[in-house]
Amino acid sequence: MALRDHFPWTQSPLIINAPMGGHAGPDLAVAVTRAGGLGQIGAVFDMAELANHLSKVESALPRHNDLLPVGVGLLPFIVKMDEALPAIEKYRPAVVWLFAAKELEDYAKCAERIRKVTPGSQIWVQVGSVAAALTIAEQCKPDAMCVQGIDAGGHGFEKGAGIVSLLPEVSDALAAAGHGSIALLASGGITEGRGAAAAFALGAQGVVMGTRFLSAPETQLHPVYRKAILAAKDGGQNTIRAKLFDELRGPNIWPLPYDGRSIVTESFTEHAGGAGIEEIRRLHAEAGKAKDGGYGLDGKGRTAMWAGTGVGLVKREQPAAEIVEEVRRQVIEVLERTRSRL
Amino acid sequence: MALRDHFPWTQSPLIINAPMGGHAGPDLAVAVTRAGGLGQIGAVFDMAELANHLSKVESALPRHNDLLPVGVGLLPFIVKMDEALPAIEKYRPAVVWLFAAKELEDYAKCAERIRKVTPGSQIWVQVGSVAAALTIAEQCKPDAMCVQGIDAGGHGFEKGAGIVSLLPEVSDALAAAGHGSIALLASGGITEGRGAAAAFALGAQGVVMGTRFLSAPETQLHPVYRKAILAAKDGGQNTIRAKLFDELRGPNIWPLPYDGRSIVTESFTEHAGGAGIEEIRRLHAEAGKAKDGGYGLDGKGRTAMWAGTGVGLVKREQPAAEIVEEVRRQVIEVLERTRSRL
Repeated sequence: MALRDHFPWTQSPLIINAPMGGHAGPDLAVAVTRAGGLGQIGAVFDMAELANHLSKVESALPRHNDLLPVGVGLLPFIVKMDEALPAIEKYRPAVVWLFAAKELEDYAKCAERIRKVTPGSQIWVQVGSVAAALTIAEQCKPDAMCVQGIDAGGHGFEKGAGIVSLLPEVSDALAAAGHGSIALLASGGITEGRGAAAAFALGAQGVVMGTRFLSAPETQLHPVYRKAILAAKDGGQNTIRAKLFDELRGPNIWPLPYDGRSIVTESFTEHAGGAGIEEIRRLHAEAGKAKDGGYGLDGKGRTAMWAGTGVGLVKREQPAAEIVEEVRRQVIEVLERTRSRL
Repeated sequence: MALRDHFPWTQSPLIINAPMGGHAGPDLAVAVTRAGGLGQIGAVFDMAELANHLSKVESALPRHNDLLPVGVGLLPFIVKMDEALPAIEKYRPAVVWLFAAKELEDYAKCAERIRKVTPGSQIWVQVGSVAAALTIAEQCKPDAMCVQGIDAGGHGFEKGAGIVSLLPEVSDALAAAGHGSIALLASGGITEGRGAAAAFALGAQGVVMGTRFLSAPETQLHPVYRKAILAAKDGGQNTIRAKLFDELRGPNIWPLPYDGRSIVTESFTEHAGGAGIEEIRRLHAEAGKAKDGGYGLDGKGRTAMWAGTGVGLVKREQPAAEIVEEVRRQVIEVLERTRSRL
């Protein structure tokens, strides 16, 4: 059974929005799902807000196989499962996406509790290495894993590889270990048809985009942050992975293997130039009170602006549905054009 | 005119070996070209050796359009052009591949001198950012650029992106600036058919592989280094980019933007753990005198073992011709299979 068969409202190729905490809410998820993709909502700390978001989805979209046709992203190292489970049980999202656990075995513990309250929902786990994929496959047996490459924006793995090598190696290693039935998705650096076509050629059954959806008005985003996304060029040069972005509001709470990719900001540049963290934090807190939220363009701004290396390919504001339909069409066009020119 | 039309002996899709200095010699170049790819030789300091290598190619392969059907890789920041040009003029390789200049404008200076002595040869430049691609296109007008992603093994750009986002952004930026006629190749993390198919989907007219060809007996490589390549897994975790690898034999001579990706060695681990560079160098020099050349498996060894993140997909020794033919076949299979399953 192909992954997409579990999501009867979706169209091929499968396009998914990353469950970006604080940014991917019900408006984005509903728009992506309505366009034949899999929409996702990102939850961080606030489970009352998650319930509220899912209630909005429920009023907007019909259920499929008794499940709400969206995914919910949870961060196992943050989430209190006792608080999250009531909303998950009540709304039964089609997917629960897990990313960032303190220990790899925590994914299995989370998954067990989720399966108990909503056995029909799929469990997806995002991974960044072959070793983690093997361990998680063994312990947690997720329905799918999202293989996140080093190009991804926002939180990811400090140490990793691009999807060009990571996805095929994970795929082969899982198959060799008897876990070939776990579907693979790809994320990290994919913002349009060529990257998405590449991901499918690498073996993905769906592609997950975050940065591209920051251009959608349905995504909750400060307007200056959105402007910075549309203005940024040369993504490998003007974004950077660093733990600093998790230090700006106080001590980093993320587990050791994680960091985040942001557009290069003054906070980063000044810290790299030797400014102490206390001073960086003070300036960050002050800047955050301004009307621009501390966001800025052209290397300015102090607030983190999560973005992947594909940000230079994101050039205009565009409704989420249009993004989903455009990328879906481009994937087929790219594959056919590539085959025929070779 | 498609890039491949300049190389009438090649078959589509175009497969190229990276001109790995000290490793890619005439045996590899001849085998790759004979198999319908573009074989390349890497030169570093020794131009008498380059002439000797090209003379061997000349005895093995017929000329095409009066050019030797191989490429020659030169490092502009190292090479003395007065020493290199006589060999280039005498043998007229089909391609001169330039990588790593002190200043971007040096590419144009090199190219001018090369074009004077062999106007029929193509000039290719390897780049790692959109900004560099635009400047080099403007100043040097190369026939092709190889877009090198961050996954590449050996020397590359300390700061960059994977090909999934870098190649499309370079492609769009060049087209917008009126340089759309410059062909693009892809390197970095490509070791087999899926990665190569992805690169073509991203817009490449040819793929360049280094790490994969380390498995070929035609590549000059210490047997322990080759064993380490075949044994390495989880390429994003067990290789690392670092300037340290250029510090092992003395002060780093590479220009600032460059570093190199190697399998993780004891030199790296101990230096990261706090050991001073003088002690690391002493142990490195000592280890290099042993029969194993200071190479080792499973995190052992002190000599750099350049490898890309795709190393985990390279599992057995294989003749270069077989690699070229296999990847060429796989690219078509992958594209057709991907299109038909979507």
